Amino acid sequence: MSSTLKKLQVVSPVPADIDIANSVEPFHISDIARELSLGTSHYDFYVRLPQVLLSVLDELQGSKDGYYVVVGGITPTPLGEGKSTTTVGLCQALGVFLDKKVVTCLRQPSQGPTFGIKGGAAGGGYSQVIPMDEFNLHLTGDIHAITAANNLLAAAIDTRIFHESTQSDKALFNRLCPPNKEGKRSFSNIMLRRLKKLGISKDRPEDLSPEEVKKFARLDIDPNSITWRRVMDVNDRFLRKITVGQGPEEKGMTRETGFDISVASEIMAVLALTISLADMRERLGNMVIGNSKAGDPVTADDLGVGGALTVLMKDAINPTLMQTLEGTPVLVHAGPFANIAHGNSSIVADKIALKLVGPGGFVVTEAGFGSDIGTEKFMNIKCRYSGLTPQCAVINVGLVEAGCVNLARHISNTKSYGVNVVVAVNMFSTDTKAELNAVKSAAMAAGAFDAVICTHHAHGGKGAVDLGIAVQKACESVAQPLKFLYPLDISIKEKIEAIARSYGAAGVEYSEQAEKQIELYSRQGFSGLPICMAKTQYSFSHNAAEKGAPSGFILPIRDVRASIGAGFIYPLVGTMSTMPGLPTRPCFYDIDLDTSTGRVIGLS
Amino acid sequence: MSSTLKKLQVVSPVPADIDIANSVEPFHISDIARELSLGTSHYDFYVRLPQVLLSVLDELQGSKDGYYVVVGGITPTPLGEGKSTTTVGLCQALGVFLDKKVVTCLRQPSQGPTFGIKGGAAGGGYSQVIPMDEFNLHLTGDIHAITAANNLLAAAIDTRIFHESTQSDKALFNRLCPPNKEGKRSFSNIMLRRLKKLGISKDRPEDLSPEEVKKFARLDIDPNSITWRRVMDVNDRFLRKITVGQGPEEKGMTRETGFDISVASEIMAVLALTISLADMRERLGNMVIGNSKAGDPVTADDLGVGGALTVLMKDAINPTLMQTLEGTPVLVHAGPFANIAHGNSSIVADKIALKLVGPGGFVVTEAGFGSDIGTEKFMNIKCRYSGLTPQCAVINVGLVEAGCVNLARHISNTKSYGVNVVVAVNMFSTDTKAELNAVKSAAMAAGAFDAVICTHHAHGGKGAVDLGIAVQKACESVAQPLKFLYPLDISIKEKIEAIARSYGAAGVEYSEQAEKQIELYSRQGFSGLPICMAKTQYSFSHNAAEKGAPSGFILPIRDVRASIGAGFIYPLVGTMSTMPGLPTRPCFYDIDLDTSTGRVIGLS
Repeated sequence: MSSTLKKLQVVSPVPADIDIANSVEPFHISDIARELSLGTSHYDFYVRLPQVLLSVLDELQGSKDGYYVVVGGITPTPLGEGKSTTTVGLCQALGVFLDKKVVTCLRQPSQGPTFGIKGGAAGGGYSQVIPMDEFNLHLTGDIHAITAANNLLAAAIDTRIFHESTQSDKALFNRLCPPNKEGKRSFSNIMLRRLKKLGISKDRPEDLSPEEVKKFARLDIDPNSITWRRVMDVNDRFLRKITVGQGPEEKGMTRETGFDISVASEIMAVLALTISLADMRERLGNMVIGNSKAGDPVTADDLGVGGALTVLMKDAINPTLMQTLEGTPVLVHAGPFANIAHGNSSIVADKIALKLVGPGGFVVTEAGFGSDIGTEKFMNIKCRYSGLTPQCAVINVGLVEAGCVNLARHISNTKSYGVNVVVAVNMFSTDTKAELNAVKSAAMAAGAFDAVICTHHAHGGKGAVDLGIAVQKACESVAQPLKFLYPLDISIKEKIEAIARSYGAAGVEYSEQAEKQIELYSRQGFSGLPICMAKTQYSFSHNAAEKGAPSGFILPIRDVRASIGAGFIYPLVGTMSTMPGLPTRPCFYDIDLDTSTGRVIGLS
Repeated sequence: MSSTLKKLQVVSPVPADIDIANSVEPFHISDIARELSLGTSHYDFYVRLPQVLLSVLDELQGSKDGYYVVVGGITPTPLGEGKSTTTVGLCQALGVFLDKKVVTCLRQPSQGPTFGIKGGAAGGGYSQVIPMDEFNLHLTGDIHAITAANNLLAAAIDTRIFHESTQSDKALFNRLCPPNKEGKRSFSNIMLRRLKKLGISKDRPEDLSPEEVKKFARLDIDPNSITWRRVMDVNDRFLRKITVGQGPEEKGMTRETGFDISVASEIMAVLALTISLADMRERLGNMVIGNSKAGDPVTADDLGVGGALTVLMKDAINPTLMQTLEGTPVLVHAGPFANIAHGNSSIVADKIALKLVGPGGFVVTEAGFGSDIGTEKFMNIKCRYSGLTPQCAVINVGLVEAGCVNLARHISNTKSYGVNVVVAVNMFSTDTKAELNAVKSAAMAAGAFDAVICTHHAHGGKGAVDLGIAVQKACESVAQPLKFLYPLDISIKEKIEAIARSYGAAGVEYSEQAEKQIELYSRQGFSGLPICMAKTQYSFSHNAAEKGAPSGFILPIRDVRASIGAGFIYPLVGTMSTMPGLPTRPCFYDIDLDTSTGRVIGLS
């Protein structure tokens, strides 16, 4: 296909994203797949987009991986920094102009910002993922599946508390294990999991003692301990804090809770970190929703729902195959928001891609925001679970945002993992050579492997060829093993403090609630997990106004949750909200359908 | 294809649904499509299932329609009555054994009951829609799209109230029409709709007088008038009645509201009743969410979101093509729950199907529950909007439920529309000939065109051949025009009372809230719309315990909402809940994934 790869007809000034996207005739997605040696047995059609099946990993397990590159940014402004555009531009350069096998691995956007403030998220200018509307709308339904599964678990929790409060042990047990037409009772398989966890080795309901019946049937959930929240993929601030159960039939069993945005669900993190269907089944079943009144963790499997969650997620586990404007392949899988969630694209997409590109090929993925919250999680959580080591990290910066102390700290933080750091300096038409060279010098002085001026927004892959060359050199240099920021076998607090030091904090303070939660999770045996910080992206510190490279501050930990299924402890820093809100004039005012052509208007 | 249509290898006793479904090798869906003269330009692949494009209607607009058959039931028990099984069995008979062109038009199941009490909903025995799991899970994402759109509108409402309460007219206007880089302000197209509705014929923001600015920018929504609720496709009783907005950032602007199950959303009804993209755009924009404090209706377009809703629904407008066990085509579109919602499958699916089968062909669709709430809405709402007239109505009954006075009333109610009624009596192995003949006689005495014993559950289409012959005869008899139960140009109360009389009620009583709403909607000019009753399916009356053919009761109307976009007034009878709950042992306890094969367990 390389001989037929598109050379874009570039127009100046750069037209609107959507006009560019509409002016390019996409390759048929099966041609994209064929170039990766994927045949029709490897994918299923979904919204005109195939999902690549995990069986590809089994088939290629003996093959060697390509180079692994992560793109991060510096401390951003609210509209983002063009990091996705750089990720895509770099890949277009590698694939079209440097003749490399390359796959871009991206996250699916949340529909919250798409209809709120940010609009579409598919790159920009001549470096985009297409079809853009598919990317920004339902895609292959992964986020909808997460919403459905998350909220089924939430319903199961509240309903279980209700049923336990209104029935005796005997009545509960009778309903959980009713006699069949022949009068025979039995345990379902998921019930056997709970029995095993409780150390009850009987498999016939009639053999349980009254004490065992009570232990089995009563989860005895402490409503005040519930950390599982419902989710919605909409910026709906009025759902941040709500009271549920106020209907007359719910008998006064009200509870304060709230909704998070769907991409912040633990189920999204499970999707991003899982490596197989069987692994996903276990993770989903192990998700902890709160405690019993005796202080023991209650899981999705305890509620009987782990299997159903897996069924709802069975198609979402397959990454979706799309393409860039210049015809290189893109895998889209898992979701964003490294400020309030795990926020990385998936391990399975990266692993599939690394096999498909092979030695000498490149997989370029993207971490959220800056090194403090995006790359930090990419390294300490995602790479720890995947066992993969990136050879190169690209830091994307536009001139106007390049407060150089901020850039310098992002460079040094990222280098400390053992990767070669290449800085991509995005040039805009108003920038002078002197200004750009100043940023380049600052980057090199801060320890970057290289710093390269890029124009991929205006020129597509052609404008990122130097970046591609630099990235290739960085990857080919002697690889170091990945150096994690902290080991797993220290305490939760010591891990939080290691991360806080990398932000520039002088120390950490814990609220009463945070202390309580840390003590609980340590006692429950979860202190060996990595840490996933929810913190503002607008500053290294917790205070969005503190730009540059602040130091000496005390990082406040407001609360701590545990995502045991995904596999991390989840501290919330300061007033970080897990549910955005709509502005006065949401961008949906400009979004409509041309009903005569079926074309979407205004989504860019 | 008819020569290769499957003859099923029937086994006795009848195996589990899922074993039967798994034992049949489906036709490739493109073969199904080809038999309907659909080519690749007419559909898009989605989850291995194509969606049939509306352009087919344009292409075939000169063609004549086939016969139109609706299947209803009698007053049911909680697990349903096998009505879908009869619908599918009849079609398998017509298509495979009577060599007719036939399309089955069904509704997509809600995931609420699928994980709650009912399990899967794809027919049963040897009369099923396959692949079963796809049918019962996400399918092509229509319900997810409805959830996303419904909840975006909900977020827009609360956020707008908030922003209006915290900003002056000038600040609001400045944010709604901000100056661009050249300092120029403009109205978006959707804003022009509001201006036109308000009678403001200016199209430049700077030309508006302060009074006009206020009228335009302030919707001034009365929070107590809001009828728009959020939705979730989960049985989550604790969301029935909630308080939102309790977070510190929401400044005390709390509000009591609740969630409905997604298939009860007005957007589902719009999907079922729309006839084109352009029509859907108008309906969505016209949905009324509540009133201004001055008492004027506030619409989705007033909130600026009608276009965005249409974009979220643009793929859902295309029906999904599946197949029966015996290889006949099925169109799946729109959703269930005629007890709490409109509950009919879509007009567009029926119209497409009627063209595709052509003269002498059959389209068989299904109305929810019994004639009181399913067929009544099918006739008085769906057929009124589609302009289609069914020639035959099948009433499905199993022996054990055949309380004959109940059956007799369903027959006479249905006949009164002018259709020929054929009763399908489902035989089970324990039924005696005498019992079955008694039901047949009662049916004929009550005015049925014919009554036929069926065994399609055990035998597939072969067990419904006599039913197919009877249906064909019924359709070929002289057709009458459709007689609606009530005309549109009488008052809202007179219409409600006409429907109540068909239930056997002696009269209707209205709560204070209901009176207030009726007065409001009459004043606002909506009294010319049809009526969509939300009432229990378990009795002709409002009282689920009153079986048979109750009469003389007074029907209580608790509340009245208006679904102006969908096009009906929506009275709520008695204590009808629009959000089901999970039982003590939801069927999700039996649902899991075999992770070695990827197969779903326990969904039937």
